[in-house]
Amino acid sequence: MSDHETVPAAVEHEDEIPPDHPRYTDLVTRHRIERGVEKGITHLQGMHAEGRGSAFDYLLGEETTETADEAERAAAAHLLSADQPVLSINGNVAALVPGEMVELAAAVDADLEINLFNRTPERIGAIESHLREHGATAVKGLEADARIPNLDHERSKVDAEGIYSADVVLVPLEDGDRAEALEAMGKTEIVIDLNPLSRSPQVADVPVVDNIVRAVPNMTAHARALQDASEAELEAIIEDFDRERALEAAESRIRNGL
Amino acid sequence: MSDHETVPAAVEHEDEIPPDHPRYTDLVTRHRIERGVEKGITHLQGMHAEGRGSAFDYLLGEETTETADEAERAAAAHLLSADQPVLSINGNVAALVPGEMVELAAAVDADLEINLFNRTPERIGAIESHLREHGATAVKGLEADARIPNLDHERSKVDAEGIYSADVVLVPLEDGDRAEALEAMGKTEIVIDLNPLSRSPQVADVPVVDNIVRAVPNMTAHARALQDASEAELEAIIEDFDRERALEAAESRIRNGL
Repeated sequence: MSDHETVPAAVEHEDEIPPDHPRYTDLVTRHRIERGVEKGITHLQGMHAEGRGSAFDYLLGEETTETADEAERAAAAHLLSADQPVLSINGNVAALVPGEMVELAAAVDADLEINLFNRTPERIGAIESHLREHGATAVKGLEADARIPNLDHERSKVDAEGIYSADVVLVPLEDGDRAEALEAMGKTEIVIDLNPLSRSPQVADVPVVDNIVRAVPNMTAHARALQDASEAELEAIIEDFDRERALEAAESRIRNGL
Repeated sequence: MSDHETVPAAVEHEDEIPPDHPRYTDLVTRHRIERGVEKGITHLQGMHAEGRGSAFDYLLGEETTETADEAERAAAAHLLSADQPVLSINGNVAALVPGEMVELAAAVDADLEINLFNRTPERIGAIESHLREHGATAVKGLEADARIPNLDHERSKVDAEGIYSADVVLVPLEDGDRAEALEAMGKTEIVIDLNPLSRSPQVADVPVVDNIVRAVPNMTAHARALQDASEAELEAIIEDFDRERALEAAESRIRNGL
């Protein structure tokens, strides 16, 4: 809990955090979530979830492991070969990587869809504006004219033309219930989560155990590198990825990497 | 980050959280911090710190280990044999265990002193009222007429008759800079922190690696049991406690207890 030992008490702008600070990523993510809460984008509980994630990131060494990089490449291959890929955006995702998600969506030709645990019209509106400020031209999740089966009413709301009919979905920082319900719909699910033992990565086709601020730009880089790859090449990358091995490698890193 | 998978989206009162919920402690602590932020007691960053702590608690098995219990007994012995013990209160401590700190102070005849990382008159006032609502009759930290050497101006403010002259201080959930500065003043320092590798427990005479909501009531129980103990008995308990072993046991639990 004494994790802010070398941290400035408060910074007004992200660029006040020195890039060579040993805990730069953690400070930047915390700062972005804090601003997200202040702007009404992120629920207060998102700050707690981010803190929880930051402890796992600390134990993982705060870097993209080789296995995580493989998962991010497999995720890019899945998104590129999808018929209808959708990237799901919640309050923490919007606060942490708004521009990065817009770039990934462009690189893999996917839709962005807002999907909230604590859904209110105000938060939906704030997130939509925030994404548009970061370059999004189309944002789904406002119509909410379909429902994910077997999920609480509010949390099940999705767009019929979006997540509901998508074949591949990226659901970063997502709760286990929704991850399970999407999996049960037969979708190919890519999850980004720093705790390899939580339910979301456990049910994902591609569990990415990495910090979202590193994972998303790296997925985009992989997608750009694979832009001209054939269907067969993408398929080979997808087949090569071993989800069990990825989860085990992350758990082992947390255990022994201290 | 998908840690709220089985968690109600929001509860109005703590007693809506079922005590048999597998993540009861985590839900209660998160709820109390959230209310603390809303009441102006806790800084937004406290929510992040609590989330970080909750990940370590999860890895520790969310229970008071035998070694933590020994540390809590040694802490009680230190407080009982002190000439001038002081319990330091920050925003997270006030939100999580206000009544419990008041009870511990009574059991060991210690002062309560508010000491904030992000110090504002509003927060000081809100915390003082909150502590008084929970039974505190005297609260230090408002005068702030002395300074801890080698610390930023705002963070160094303490009472001359309080932490400044105390021989034994309990500093729960404290940042490493302040823990180090207090240690450098020659005080006997008891730290409560869920990350055994962070600087505060590393510099403490008694590092208590446990969740504060379990640790403080357990210290009080030990203090009451030791109420009639002789100075020699208290001294023996203090001597028996091995801080290095306690830190190693906690780290080993995090590594292997997954």
